[in-house]
Amino acid sequence: MKKIDVAIVGASGFTGLELIKIIINHPNFRLKYVANSEGGMSLSELYPALKSVVDIDIKKGDAKEIAKCASLAFLALPHKSAMGFAKELLDLGVKVVDLSADYRLELETYERYYCTHQDKEHLSRAVYGLPEFFRDDIKRAKLVANPGCYPTATLLGLLPFCKYIDESYPIFIDAKSGVSGAGKKCSDKTHFVFIDENVSAYNPLSHRHEPEIKEKMKIISKGVEYDINFVPHLLPLIRGEMCDIYCKLKEDIDPLEYLKEFYKDEKFIRVFDKPVTIKGVGGTNFCDIFAKKSNSNLYICSTIDNILKGSSSAAVVNANIMSGFEEDLGIPTIAYVP
Amino acid sequence: MKKIDVAIVGASGFTGLELIKIIINHPNFRLKYVANSEGGMSLSELYPALKSVVDIDIKKGDAKEIAKCASLAFLALPHKSAMGFAKELLDLGVKVVDLSADYRLELETYERYYCTHQDKEHLSRAVYGLPEFFRDDIKRAKLVANPGCYPTATLLGLLPFCKYIDESYPIFIDAKSGVSGAGKKCSDKTHFVFIDENVSAYNPLSHRHEPEIKEKMKIISKGVEYDINFVPHLLPLIRGEMCDIYCKLKEDIDPLEYLKEFYKDEKFIRVFDKPVTIKGVGGTNFCDIFAKKSNSNLYICSTIDNILKGSSSAAVVNANIMSGFEEDLGIPTIAYVP
Amino acid sequence: MKKIDVAIVGASGFTGLELIKIIINHPNFRLKYVANSEGGMSLSELYPALKSVVDIDIKKGDAKEIAKCASLAFLALPHKSAMGFAKELLDLGVKVVDLSADYRLELETYERYYCTHQDKEHLSRAVYGLPEFFRDDIKRAKLVANPGCYPTATLLGLLPFCKYIDESYPIFIDAKSGVSGAGKKCSDKTHFVFIDENVSAYNPLSHRHEPEIKEKMKIISKGVEYDINFVPHLLPLIRGEMCDIYCKLKEDIDPLEYLKEFYKDEKFIRVFDKPVTIKGVGGTNFCDIFAKKSNSNLYICSTIDNILKGSSSAAVVNANIMSGFEEDLGIPTIAYVP
Amino acid sequence: MKKIDVAIVGASGFTGLELIKIIINHPNFRLKYVANSEGGMSLSELYPALKSVVDIDIKKGDAKEIAKCASLAFLALPHKSAMGFAKELLDLGVKVVDLSADYRLELETYERYYCTHQDKEHLSRAVYGLPEFFRDDIKRAKLVANPGCYPTATLLGLLPFCKYIDESYPIFIDAKSGVSGAGKKCSDKTHFVFIDENVSAYNPLSHRHEPEIKEKMKIISKGVEYDINFVPHLLPLIRGEMCDIYCKLKEDIDPLEYLKEFYKDEKFIRVFDKPVTIKGVGGTNFCDIFAKKSNSNLYICSTIDNILKGSSSAAVVNANIMSGFEEDLGIPTIAYVP
Repeated sequence: MKKIDVAIVGASGFTGLELIKIIINHPNFRLKYVANSEGGMSLSELYPALKSVVDIDIKKGDAKEIAKCASLAFLALPHKSAMGFAKELLDLGVKVVDLSADYRLELETYERYYCTHQDKEHLSRAVYGLPEFFRDDIKRAKLVANPGCYPTATLLGLLPFCKYIDESYPIFIDAKSGVSGAGKKCSDKTHFVFIDENVSAYNPLSHRHEPEIKEKMKIISKGVEYDINFVPHLLPLIRGEMCDIYCKLKEDIDPLEYLKEFYKDEKFIRVFDKPVTIKGVGGTNFCDIFAKKSNSNLYICSTIDNILKGSSSAAVVNANIMSGFEEDLGIPTIAYVP
Repeated sequence: MKKIDVAIVGASGFTGLELIKIIINHPNFRLKYVANSEGGMSLSELYPALKSVVDIDIKKGDAKEIAKCASLAFLALPHKSAMGFAKELLDLGVKVVDLSADYRLELETYERYYCTHQDKEHLSRAVYGLPEFFRDDIKRAKLVANPGCYPTATLLGLLPFCKYIDESYPIFIDAKSGVSGAGKKCSDKTHFVFIDENVSAYNPLSHRHEPEIKEKMKIISKGVEYDINFVPHLLPLIRGEMCDIYCKLKEDIDPLEYLKEFYKDEKFIRVFDKPVTIKGVGGTNFCDIFAKKSNSNLYICSTIDNILKGSSSAAVVNANIMSGFEEDLGIPTIAYVP
Repeated sequence: MKKIDVAIVGASGFTGLELIKIIINHPNFRLKYVANSEGGMSLSELYPALKSVVDIDIKKGDAKEIAKCASLAFLALPHKSAMGFAKELLDLGVKVVDLSADYRLELETYERYYCTHQDKEHLSRAVYGLPEFFRDDIKRAKLVANPGCYPTATLLGLLPFCKYIDESYPIFIDAKSGVSGAGKKCSDKTHFVFIDENVSAYNPLSHRHEPEIKEKMKIISKGVEYDINFVPHLLPLIRGEMCDIYCKLKEDIDPLEYLKEFYKDEKFIRVFDKPVTIKGVGGTNFCDIFAKKSNSNLYICSTIDNILKGSSSAAVVNANIMSGFEEDLGIPTIAYVP
Repeated sequence: MKKIDVAIVGASGFTGLELIKIIINHPNFRLKYVANSEGGMSLSELYPALKSVVDIDIKKGDAKEIAKCASLAFLALPHKSAMGFAKELLDLGVKVVDLSADYRLELETYERYYCTHQDKEHLSRAVYGLPEFFRDDIKRAKLVANPGCYPTATLLGLLPFCKYIDESYPIFIDAKSGVSGAGKKCSDKTHFVFIDENVSAYNPLSHRHEPEIKEKMKIISKGVEYDINFVPHLLPLIRGEMCDIYCKLKEDIDPLEYLKEFYKDEKFIRVFDKPVTIKGVGGTNFCDIFAKKSNSNLYICSTIDNILKGSSSAAVVNANIMSGFEEDLGIPTIAYVP
């Protein structure tokens, strides 16, 4: 099969690096173009760990140049920068997988929690890239909005239970993330001395992933408004994310058996009889899920690698689907353990 | 003032070490007797870090020997071993602060979750050592049962809200602990390679601290049965514990203002306007609390040093109260930051 | 090309797991047999992280069974157990890559530092599996002794300089290893609470890798006795190893330029102009080297992933060479960063 | 005894915080003035962990204000800023303990490795604050230059052996430091994701602490020029420092027995028969030392808490000596273990 040429824009961040690591080993995608905001260096200068593995010049991102050499682009940019780039690429006929928040939400929600949207036209046609629930739409999409990392882990745990959850009770999500989720920028939130031997919640009950979870729950449940309460924490580890979900069941089901049946055909969802770990999914595209109830109170625990299933490998899965490839083609499944 | 001579039984564990560290600097207690299960070595052989700081022979614990030289004993023993020792000491007239679970619960609860109780007589007179709520009882007690670490952090966050919490909704507690909480014994749960860069829940919805929380909530609220759901996690850090509590309010209050007022006279409770951290209490007897609500959903976050406020320094506070000293005498308040 | 069927004996240790992870993705080797000391479980029961990735029953190791289904075996066993197994396999015509110390040393050295050798016959024909220096011998070998992790990093840094090092001065090696190097067994040396936020030397000037380094230096330099002084340290990280080497030059050379020229055809050695890191090689078979001198004092720094280039991936490279494959076939080169 | 009023300038850095933590518990010093470069906040705003422990307004540093209220000042400032401040304070009659490099070196050395000196007058009278070797000078000093952290650990290990070290051989120092040594500023060198699970050398053979070690060795040995080669590493831990020293003996001595005798009267030096650890000194002013030889090759290992014995607690020890107090008054000796 002829390889598809792809571009990665935003090579400097952690998700950009993960995209590069997957694409250079992908059997059907060929990395033709890599850009960051400065350009003018080679990949192995930016990432000494890639020396002797891959070398390609990093450009200053330019949509027209991309359109000349690639038919699909991954955008690993901050929100707001992403939509400017995506609009131009789409108009030039390049398919886009956008890893930012720019095309994840409905217009009103987006503008309430982020900023004024500058590409309403494509927003209305963007597909939410959670294949387990939107696979058919992704197949036909020109623009896929990759879900946020917390929504990925949370929705994969919660959505199967939609019809059994008592919506008159609040749903609480206690999320825990490694520091790579806070990005490459140096700050108090990322300084080793503040993170190590520490834990803290941030933006409790006011994180922007809360409305994303709420909106997708409503779509899948065909209109139910769930009372979503989201509290993320920063943990002293590099990669990985756990979402502990607490809610109320309105029907008496066996949550584990139900989950196993629900996900029995999904390649990247693993349902476990024992509590799942962050390490078991590190380096992979898996989402591991455990569930247990006490009377009608339901506890669900879902783990992902925040920069893979929560971002970059999920993006390549979406690109696989958009390109008509097998969903798991070139996708990492072997965890970094030990 | 004449110093009171004290004994520490169970010197080998983490809480034993912390007791030693506090007592050797305490102005009114004198460390007269230290024991572990083997005896026959000196403190600085057991703990090289204590070389040139303190030296005292470690004995094989013997209640009669203790009664000869000390009037108060701290028992840092596993449950079941503790009650045997405590019974003998109490009968010999030695006051006891027991750090195990043996005297924390009512008989029926204890026997359901632990084992047959062998000292029912003293159990009925034991006082639960949470000074913020049982101070007057502690003053008169001969036997104080030091609370579990998770119950300490949880109860200090929850108890003030008893009358405002809607008991028809479940209360969820997502707890996070450093590895010192898992004890000194080597196991998969404590091997560096399994803990580092990892997080996992253990005994979700079935940890033995859940009935302890439930029972004390009921006592303080004069009979209300709360629906307590407790999920503890092991985190890659040495000391510290965070309890994130999620529940429903039945009245419209400002949780932070209420907490500040409620705890305004408590020396070891600090209420913060911003999310609290594990590091801020490491090395101290403080419990730091933050609270926030979204509509009527209440989020409370409480942090302690699991082996200090969650165990050893709390034990010395109890001993201070039992001895008629100032509550904060010799109690560590300066955190190990950075 | 027809695949070669291989066996892995010793699946429970960290190096066994790494072997499995490499072999299941290797294009020319097929994993036919996996054993540990108990048998009777499946790979995904032993390693939940491998669920849905690979499943194969784990056997209780048996040489005759192996000989029936595999033509090459990797032995990831403790020293002493390994030689019993290797002897039997070799006599049955199965090629062996042994990851233990049993065939690394000359008889006298081995018996001085380990124990009585029980397979002198094969020992005399074993090849030391450091391809950068013994490639041609490995091609023809039936039994390859995989080098120790510290000797790998040290020798790759030191051997190129043999003819320039002043042997009348001592050579000092300050080695630093992650905890996976201490094995899966729980002990004070591997308990999270003792390792985290700590560093310590162990067996200084008396570690068994010291004679291994000395012996190979002597062989490559055709008889020179170097004064090797080796001090290893345990660091609070999972995988990775750094050897800092300090010695005296007797000729004025540019160490970096010399190294680059020396290793210019080696696929798995990377010479850097800046200090190398442990993270840059984590997850790969690379050895990264930096060197600098001050007057005639030479500093060399060499990093490897201790359980890959220092063990399992090096073993597969050796198997590739023994099988006539490209040396880098199926060998991991993309680091786990971030 | 009347308390002495002291000032701390440079409260925002890690060493400033440690100074505060020691001084607020010191029986004979009273904290009268705290400054950082901005002023205008309280201590507990800057350090939430100090809430309810101490509160004092932080000023924008002003020498005249200090002179009004304090008779001794600790300067925890970057080099260059420190000398401007020190000069003014000394001229106003305030004693100074300077934690920067500004007064540590002889003029020529300083100007070669740092910058032009702006206070040559006081430089010539400054005393190097290593009490184990310069105690009598410190007693009489108005200005004490606190040694660098690496020189402290290295010199305490090396200086006792001056007369036995063969100076015709190089001395190699492989130093390992926690991240607090890199300061509070955010950078790639302090970002959690780059530090965690990583190790790297920095400024090998060209760190500015190398000439400091060399100069003090020469002074103590009355003129011998040692060939000092210094390579520091950054480790994934918060506090603590280990210096591994490798050199050649010219006389046959028992290094451990010699060290024990040499340091028998020093309160803050502990000589161990087993390899020392970083954790054993964390939170204390101890320097722990181990030594071993192999033939005439000597290995010395010295550990300190880099921000205490390597900086802040050492500064308070110097202030104690300058004030005629017992050297160990108010100095922390109980390690943060576990």
